[in-house]
Parts: sequence; C-alpha cells; structure tokens
Amino acid sequence: MREAIQNFKEVERWGLFELSLSGSGEGNPFLDIQLEAKFQHKHRIVKAEGFYDGNGVFKIRFMPDTEGTWTYSVSSNSAELDGAAGSFSCIPASSENHGPVRIRDVSHFVYEDGKAYRPFGTTCYAWTHQDEELQQQTLQTLSVSPFNKIRMCVFPKNYSFNLNEPDFFPFVGSSVEGFDWTRFNPDYFANLEQKIMELQKLGIEADLILFHPYDKGRWGFDRMDAKTDAYYLRYIIARLGAFRNIWWSLANEFDFMTEKTMDDWDRSFRIVQESDPYQHLRSIHNGTKMYDPTTLIVYDHTKPWVTHVSMQYWELTPTNAWRKLYGKPVVVDECCYEGNLPQRWGNITGEDMTARFWDGFTRGGYVGHGETFLHAEEVVWWSKGGQLYGESPARIAFLQQILNEAPACMESIDRLRDAPTIGVEGEYYLQYFGIHRPAYRELPLPSDRSFKIDVIDTWRMTVTTLEGTFSGMTRIDMPGTPYIAIRACVIEKGEV
Amino acid sequence: MREAIQNFKEVERWGLFELSLSGSGEGNPFLDIQLEAKFQHKHRIVKAEGFYDGNGVFKIRFMPDTEGTWTYSVSSNSAELDGAAGSFSCIPASSENHGPVRIRDVSHFVYEDGKAYRPFGTTCYAWTHQDEELQQQTLQTLSVSPFNKIRMCVFPKNYSFNLNEPDFFPFVGSSVEGFDWTRFNPDYFANLEQKIMELQKLGIEADLILFHPYDKGRWGFDRMDAKTDAYYLRYIIARLGAFRNIWWSLANEFDFMTEKTMDDWDRSFRIVQESDPYQHLRSIHNGTKMYDPTTLIVYDHTKPWVTHVSMQYWELTPTNAWRKLYGKPVVVDECCYEGNLPQRWGNITGEDMTARFWDGFTRGGYVGHGETFLHAEEVVWWSKGGQLYGESPARIAFLQQILNEAPACMESIDRLRDAPTIGVEGEYYLQYFGIHRPAYRELPLPSDRSFKIDVIDTWRMTVTTLEGTFSGMTRIDMPGTPYIAIRACVIEKGEV
Repeated sequence: MREAIQNFKEVERWGLFELSLSGSGEGNPFLDIQLEAKFQHKHRIVKAEGFYDGNGVFKIRFMPDTEGTWTYSVSSNSAELDGAAGSFSCIPASSENHGPVRIRDVSHFVYEDGKAYRPFGTTCYAWTHQDEELQQQTLQTLSVSPFNKIRMCVFPKNYSFNLNEPDFFPFVGSSVEGFDWTRFNPDYFANLEQKIMELQKLGIEADLILFHPYDKGRWGFDRMDAKTDAYYLRYIIARLGAFRNIWWSLANEFDFMTEKTMDDWDRSFRIVQESDPYQHLRSIHNGTKMYDPTTLIVYDHTKPWVTHVSMQYWELTPTNAWRKLYGKPVVVDECCYEGNLPQRWGNITGEDMTARFWDGFTRGGYVGHGETFLHAEEVVWWSKGGQLYGESPARIAFLQQILNEAPACMESIDRLRDAPTIGVEGEYYLQYFGIHRPAYRELPLPSDRSFKIDVIDTWRMTVTTLEGTFSGMTRIDMPGTPYIAIRACVIEKGEV
Repeated sequence: MREAIQNFKEVERWGLFELSLSGSGEGNPFLDIQLEAKFQHKHRIVKAEGFYDGNGVFKIRFMPDTEGTWTYSVSSNSAELDGAAGSFSCIPASSENHGPVRIRDVSHFVYEDGKAYRPFGTTCYAWTHQDEELQQQTLQTLSVSPFNKIRMCVFPKNYSFNLNEPDFFPFVGSSVEGFDWTRFNPDYFANLEQKIMELQKLGIEADLILFHPYDKGRWGFDRMDAKTDAYYLRYIIARLGAFRNIWWSLANEFDFMTEKTMDDWDRSFRIVQESDPYQHLRSIHNGTKMYDPTTLIVYDHTKPWVTHVSMQYWELTPTNAWRKLYGKPVVVDECCYEGNLPQRWGNITGEDMTARFWDGFTRGGYVGHGETFLHAEEVVWWSKGGQLYGESPARIAFLQQILNEAPACMESIDRLRDAPTIGVEGEYYLQYFGIHRPAYRELPLPSDRSFKIDVIDTWRMTVTTLEGTFSGMTRIDMPGTPYIAIRACVIEKGEV
C-alpha cells in the first residue's frame, strides 16, 4: 500500500486533502463499491466521489476552496466504509498557490485568487508513459522553460516516433492479453498523479487529454463503449479532480476518432461537467477540417459545457473572429511544431513558431508550443518529452516577460486593423508585424497624453526605447526586418 | 488627325484591322453617331462597333480569327459613313502571335492557337498615367522580366504614393473644370492603345481594370451613373476589343466602390459580355472581406459571364478549394507585395513573395506579383511602374522556367495532401514545401515505372538531381531549409 498521501489535519486552500480508508478488496471494488463524502464548510456542502486504489485501500480526495474548518462524512454501500467522518482545517494558500485557473471573461483566464493567468502551453503527449529517467528529464526541462501548461494524454500513444509499449496502462491488462475494462490500474495512476503534482510544484497546468485517436485499436482505448467511457471518466475525476492544476481536454483531434460521434462527445462533456465538484476548465481539440476556410468545421465551442476554445489551426489570423464567434477565450494549442519531421505539422522553423506565438497573443488569444526534431532514439519532445533543442522557447520566454510587464487584462484593439494589436485604450498598445517589414509605421496614439515607445525585435529579443515622448499620430521608423513589434506605454501623469 | 494605324490590306490572324473614315465633327459625334461594320468570312459574320476618334475621324477596328479573305460593310446613321465597304486578306499569324488567351478547362488557360498560357502577372495600376519617359522605363523593365500579364487601370489613381495629376483623362475635362461625361478624349486613348500594343509586342497580356475605387470623388470616375458606365464600356470595347492581348477586369477591389451595387457589377459584366465580339477574358477583383475565413465574401465567380477567378487573398491555401467551388481557373492576382511600405499588404519579403508564387502554382492556381518599395520620388512599381528592386522577380523567372519544362496541363494531385503538388499522375510531380523544412520526405511514386528526382531550392535557384532512379515509396533526404521543392519526372520507356 502506498503511503505518499495521508489523511491531513491541515490542508492549504486549493491543496489536496486525502482520506484513506481500509476496506475489502474482495470481488471487484472498482465496480461494486460506491463511495462518496460530503465536505461541509459552514452552510456549504460539496460532494466528492471516492475511488478504489487497490490493496484494499479506498480514497476520497478533496480540494477545499475556503479557509476554515471543513467537516466530512462518508457514505458507502460498504458497511466498513460507510459512516467515517472527521474534519480538517483549511489554512491560507502558500505564496506559489493561486488556486485553479478559471475563466475571467471572453478573453481572459485568471487564477481563483485573482492573479492573471496567460496560458503558455507546450505539448508532450506521452511523456508520463516513458521511463522514469526520461520523465525526470522532462520535468527538469520544463522547470527552466517559459511553459505554464502542458498537453498530455491519459492513454498511451501509438503513433510515428512513439511505438514503444508503456509499462503501465490505466486499465489492468496489456496489449497481449487484452484489458479488463472493469478494473483500473492503481500503479498507472500513482505515476500519473505524482507527475501532475510535480507539474503543480512547477506552476504548470496539466491540460489532461482524456481521449485520443493514436491507438487505432492497438489497445482499444479509442473504442471503448459508452458505458466504459463513463466509468473511466468518473474514476479519473474522483482521482484527479482535487489537483488544482488539472484541465480537462476531452480529446485530442477528436474528429480523427472514427468510433465516436458528436453525441458521444457531448455526453462525455456532460459527464465531466456533472462529476467534477471543482468545475475545472473543459475543452476539446480538433484534428482535420482546418485546411479549407470555406468549409471550416470544428466542435461548437458555444456549447455551455465548453469553458474555452482549444483549437488546432496553422493560422492565427482568425483568433479574434473565433473569440467573437464563441464568446470564450481562444487557445490555439496546436499551430504546427518547431522541428524537421517529414510531416507538414512538424517542421516549422523557430522563427515561425515564435511568430505564431506573437501573432496569436497580439490578437487576444493564446498559443501552444511543441517541438518535433528528429532524434536518434526517437525522443521527440511533442511525444515523449526529454530535452528542448529549438530556438523558439527562449523567444517565447521573452514574449512572456513582455506580457508580464503589460496590463493584466488587454483586449484586441480592433480599430488598429492593419496589424494585430492588443492593449488597453489610452494606456498601452502592443502591435506586431510578423513577416511584414514596414520601413515606418504611423501609430494613432491619443493626443491628450504622452507615451513612451519601444521597438521590439521579437527574434533578437531586444527592446529599443525611442528618444522622447509621443502623442497623437506618431510616425515610427522601423528596422525594415521581419518579426518586429511596437509597444507604447502611457507615461503616468506624475511623470509627464 | 493621327496616322498611326491605317486601313490595312493584309492583316495577320489575330492582328488588328482598322478602317478610318472621314466624317463630320459637328455636334457630339461620340454620342450622336452610330457606326458598325459587318465583317464576313465565308458564311460567318462578325459585327464590330466603330467609334469617334476626334478631328472628324471615325474608326472601326476588327481582329480576324480566321485566315482568308474578309469583306466588310459599314452601316451608320451618318450618310457620309454609311455604306463604306471593302475587303482585306487575313494572313497567317507571325511566330510570336498565338492569339488571345482563352480558358481551356477548369484549371488552364490557353492561347487560341493551342499553346499553353500560364499567367505570371504583375501590377502597375497607373503606369500609363505617368510621363512618357517613365512609361518607356516600365516597358524596358517588363521586357527583361518573367511577367506575361499586367494589371493596369483605365482611370487614373488617387492613392498614397500616387497623387500626381495625369496629363490626360479618358473623358474631356480636368479635375478643376470637371468632365464632359459625353465626350471621350482621343489623346488619352491614343497613349493607352500605344502602350497596350507595346505590351503585345512583349508578349504581355493587358489585364485592363475598367473601374476602381482609388478616386474617392476627386475626378468622379468611381461614381458615374449607370448610363455613363455603359457608354464608357461600349466605347472602350469598340476601341480596344480588337487588341488580342486585352483582358477585361471589371474592377479592382470592387467592394471598396461604395457607390456601386452588386447589380451594377452584374449589369456591367453583361454589357462587356454582349459588346465584345471577341469574348476576351472577364473577371473582377475583390478588396475586403478576406481576413475572416468564417465570413468569406467575394464576387460569385460561378456567374456565367465570369471566365476565371481573380482573387485578392494573402493566403494561397484555398486556391484548390476555390477552383473546385467556382469551376474556373483561379488567379490570386494580389497576395501582398514585396516591399517595405507601412501598409500591411505592401511590405513582404522577396522570400515570401516567391513562396506565394510557388504555393499558388503548386496548388494548381496562378499568382500575381507586385512591388512596393519606398522611393525618393514615390515611383513605386505597383502604381507607377519604373524599375524593379526586389528579389522575387528572378525567382519567379526560375519558377517559370521550371514550369516551361513541365507538362502543359497539370492538375493538383489531391492524393498527396501534406504538401501542395501538381503534376500528371504517373508522369510528373512537382511538390512544394514552402516554410516547411522536413529533414526527409517520402514520395509515393508509382511502382511500375522509374523516375528521375530533383531537389529544387526555389530561393537559391538550384536544381540537384539525385543519383539513380526511383520507383514506389521513395525516401528523399532534404536540405532541412525552407523553400524547397521536389520534382519527379518519369523516365521514358526507351531510357529505362
């Protein structure tokens, strides 16, 4: 029996409380035992489902969102579990704990404590299915990267450059003997949870992909029946919902999963929505139907259970239009990867990856990173993690720094139509030119206040402050090279 | 009276026959005199309208399309013109004369003599409104360029970098005193015709823009009434229709012409269709509504009077989809310009301009060039002509050479979806990677024959032939840099 997580007496706000209960491992406790606890703080009750963790151990996890005393009482169809009760104290969050990420408005994410959150995501689909040494290397790489979100799959991946058989599966069984679709594998989840907790310590959100098509029947996780899908979803929510850094990505490239219908997706979305006491963020990621603007088909992100748009598209231009269409923040979390794979989506340059980040962010959206360089041992970041070799992460960190210095809530400034611009009218403007290389630009600043202007080379990572202060229509001489941005910051009245 | 064009006794096929008749300049002959001739070859009669050319001279022009004797007879409401008759001999076309460009099928243009025509267009909207020296420089530049089509406006242009007043206008008058909308200016047309003939000698099609929005009421050519529009269209067709290298572009950025409705455009299209005895190519070029793939609105090119698609769009990706949608050849004749203007559409790099050409052509479409470098005297190619300074024209010539060596009628090879490819199945494949830089690619060649493979660096303009011959699925090592193409040519059986 694992002892990593105890029945805490003190849990910090948005921390993880875990209650372990001994019971019987007879029969199939995964299927046979119902287990739930009511957690109460003053007048408020939150229900959390428990789960069987193997070896006769049952667990109930809970993420308290309010400081003070919480009491709990357990109910179960098992007499030895039913009636357990107790209490714990929810203490203030530690300095690096800002709570789960929420939707602030149609454009912005925010931690529950009010701190702004801008997703700077990367992608390592199968990193937790690799050996421990490689997983540790991935965590080490992430720890010095700008990335604060990672897309990763529950199920293992059967795809080019990722054909190795993992040691553990979410279900009991193997590809040789088949799987017992009624029994989960606690060893698998122990590793997954440990890695999600490691990410949490690094301040990284786990954008957890619940289903994906990279199976093709090799294991069959892409073609479980509706009942098994629901069974799996409730189990994973019971285990992982109390981790504050979880996001639910219903699927990667959902439309490549030929065994599923749109009704299946809607149903799975509703199961997650109804089962998650914490209402973690939910979205779904598209595969094909992106190449023809005349027949653009994606999931209808206006559906009420979708919290934000998770998009695959190689162009950032429609970011603003999508936000208006769906009324939700837009994360283009796959827009091709920096690398040199033969596949079209996996061989753009560092310049291009960096440009896509700037383009998407200055359109008021968010962009995801990935890296796909050929590797002698087929350790490709986008799939297995490991090391980063590309030129874009340093530039993405530079963009992050620029945005950290910017107002928390910026909007796309639509009146400046000729180059994507975000900012706060009258206060701050960040305009990006991408591949365009004007010799000069005219920026129509408000005429009733003064601004400081910086010319930013987003590739060389330099900021050049223009001499003087500027008001009204301002001509700015530019270097005439691609990948330049302009930043205008109002000078506080006291400084004018 | 001008003497440049005579009443020829011999005219080559698709050459220009002109009949000059003396009449009275009293009243307003432009408006008052109806003039038409019937040209007859054996059983076939073609009617051509005449026009008043000033100084008491009336002209009727005709482009014979069949060798042999043609007779003609003139009818007019003027007794001194009515009844003129004669004949001329249509002799074989000279070696550089392939006739007007026609539509071969949904993908291809062809000269009337059967020679393939691939439009490699450029844009000098107002080049014929500049001084003679500059016009001659433009012709000189064109003569050593790869361009075989030019977009150019009848009406002068009132726009950034092009605010100078021209010497002549199509109508009598000036911006100071206003225009007489019933009287054309033969001096204006004499220059236009001379320049169209110079283009013809260079093998360049004149994609003549009949209306445009760059006026904004300065002269009022953008807001003539429907009657004046029709009057103007019939006059210009009578004057210019017999030039074999004319294409009719109803408008540039038609949707920016706020004084016109879609009905106006349809009516003007029908006037051109009904008045032109030679059925020169007709299309219309869009302005806005291009930036949002979810609300893409352009002219409905399926309308029967549209011969091909003339598109402004900054992405070449939809080229193939548009061809299928409209069922006509697609020319993306504005996709941004190489240069450094402040405006977004006017400051892409030579690399990017070249890449857009390759991208569009390998998708089975055609792409137009333009150049917009800041210039001390505001002589910007896209508007006034002059000299070319950019890096793309040499690369466009290289592409043209590659295509001249290719089969005349290639189609988009849709089964190769991951990179745009044109070719003839089993014979020839040309695949382009643009910004993508795969370390290697696998090309699924037919396995029952052998191919020669070239790796083409489209920017450095090099062709590297791989050693050996290839069949079936073929792995091709690539340089790992952007802007590479692969060409596979079947080896004739005799050579296998």
